[in-house]
Amino acid sequence: MDKIYSFYKDRSVIITGGLGFIGSSLAIRLTEVGARVTIVDSLISQYGGNMFNVEPIKDSVKINIMDIRDRHGMNNLVRGQDIMFNLAAQASHIGSMEDPFADLAINVQGQLSVLEACRENNPDIKIIFTSTRQIYGRPQYLPVDEDHPLRPTDVNGINKIAGEQYHILYRNAYGIETVILRLTNTYGPRLLVKHNRQGFLGWFLRLLLEGKEITIFGDGCRLRDLNYVDDVVDALLLSGYKKEAAGQVMNLGNHESISLLEIVKTMIEVNKSGKYNFMPFPDGIKKIDIGDSYADFSKAKNILGWEPKTSFKDGLLKTMEYYRKYGKDYYWH
Amino acid sequence: MDKIYSFYKDRSVIITGGLGFIGSSLAIRLTEVGARVTIVDSLISQYGGNMFNVEPIKDSVKINIMDIRDRHGMNNLVRGQDIMFNLAAQASHIGSMEDPFADLAINVQGQLSVLEACRENNPDIKIIFTSTRQIYGRPQYLPVDEDHPLRPTDVNGINKIAGEQYHILYRNAYGIETVILRLTNTYGPRLLVKHNRQGFLGWFLRLLLEGKEITIFGDGCRLRDLNYVDDVVDALLLSGYKKEAAGQVMNLGNHESISLLEIVKTMIEVNKSGKYNFMPFPDGIKKIDIGDSYADFSKAKNILGWEPKTSFKDGLLKTMEYYRKYGKDYYWH
Repeated sequence: MDKIYSFYKDRSVIITGGLGFIGSSLAIRLTEVGARVTIVDSLISQYGGNMFNVEPIKDSVKINIMDIRDRHGMNNLVRGQDIMFNLAAQASHIGSMEDPFADLAINVQGQLSVLEACRENNPDIKIIFTSTRQIYGRPQYLPVDEDHPLRPTDVNGINKIAGEQYHILYRNAYGIETVILRLTNTYGPRLLVKHNRQGFLGWFLRLLLEGKEITIFGDGCRLRDLNYVDDVVDALLLSGYKKEAAGQVMNLGNHESISLLEIVKTMIEVNKSGKYNFMPFPDGIKKIDIGDSYADFSKAKNILGWEPKTSFKDGLLKTMEYYRKYGKDYYWH
Repeated sequence: MDKIYSFYKDRSVIITGGLGFIGSSLAIRLTEVGARVTIVDSLISQYGGNMFNVEPIKDSVKINIMDIRDRHGMNNLVRGQDIMFNLAAQASHIGSMEDPFADLAINVQGQLSVLEACRENNPDIKIIFTSTRQIYGRPQYLPVDEDHPLRPTDVNGINKIAGEQYHILYRNAYGIETVILRLTNTYGPRLLVKHNRQGFLGWFLRLLLEGKEITIFGDGCRLRDLNYVDDVVDALLLSGYKKEAAGQVMNLGNHESISLLEIVKTMIEVNKSGKYNFMPFPDGIKKIDIGDSYADFSKAKNILGWEPKTSFKDGLLKTMEYYRKYGKDYYWH
């Protein structure tokens, strides 16, 4: 990664959603290698933004609290930036069903605001946009590759597709370089653990660390692929660096898929204690459940030279260590 | 169609965009067969809504001027309705590039507002949503069937996809019966002819009738399929009537595709006079041009028993007759 790190040295980088889980992890790495980092985050209370996430770099980055829907603000912030990592999002699937207008405002209108700001003020910027495997819906085949039909089962999936397509359109029509990464479940230090509305992993982790029993919906046989956050940060950095990435849509994923039950068992093993039980799917969650899902990431491997390096056990160890130390800054923030 | 007409007799039908070209044509037919018709239309000045469109039925229908984004209004209007023809839209492709936020507000947020109103107040309603072949983008093969990848070349295409997917989602998650028709170029009496931002056909027609020269962008070889509005109204009525239509996405189209130049020549022939010239594509239009495009409508044929019946010449004759009579009510309104 040395060549990549020196590429980012002194480069001006803006990260939307930069106080969130993945955004802050990326901001920390970029700051370590000498990039000039500007963070934009709205700190909406139920989302993943948390000032504590950037504690190690808080004096070295520019933090701009602002909603990406703020067009005048975006117009100003994008000027002079070389690269944007566009991570700001509403990321709760069940939340998108309960308040579809909020999801629409952030994941569609917000993205249009970002892209219009770039078109008008900085069309030479390169944008890396994070999307989600949720847009595929219930897989028709596995592993899911990028050509899989898009059949989202929730409002969030529909809106993330529009977000992707805007990025592709602004490249084709206006020449703004854009890269799209479709992320799978990501975990690691700084993962949101304050509620159970944004993925099961953070919530399971918290229950475990608080000595509470984990409840698995369904029979626990659902297969997933998981990425440790440092591996995802690698993929983001590679996407900004590699010329060949421009215009591409690429899945992230893992070599192995793992069942929910295995995930919980591994967590308990790493934690050296813990309990779990089963419960039928609540109706609202069953409606948007996608069944087994794991991704074919060979395109990212070919184009970026990327593959995940961290084993689930190693990743879990580091994650648990982090929350044992700093849990109080996450459980209620 | 007799069985279908008696199905609609005394049925409560709401038409969004019901003062527009296709909406008003549908409202007239439904009123003729005894349906109870409520029209919702925002009459936004640059769009296709025009009070003169419903002149023949103005005393027999309920006309409610309102934007579909008005959630409280929609909540009230959908109650007690059996069928909704959901036609309200921003339909200018170039307009969607110039003001993407307006297109988003109407074609995405507006659709969510309609669907949420139905979910909360009338989940037993059946909704027929009109989409566009524009969502396919530049065809990868011809004729374009419903499985063709969706690669829109403009903001309107992206937003119409989201509108479609919301309709599919609200069926899967909440059981609201929805049908999606992907329309191609439609023409006929009541077509918008006041500006050239909403399809070439209306504009060519107006130039011809005003004795002005028609300008064709490019070489005129672009192939299109065209539907006369009465045939499209047939397809809409069949979609609301046929149980098998529920949950389906279907193209409309025509048996024959025709080049832009042939279209213009036929128009001149029917009009018995007229001139045309060629001009290179303006940049903004070239960016979103989709090349040749015509649709495979065999799915609609199988499921609805629909096919277009009106020849282009016959359709043109009726259209020109209409505008010769009523042109003054369309050129500036």
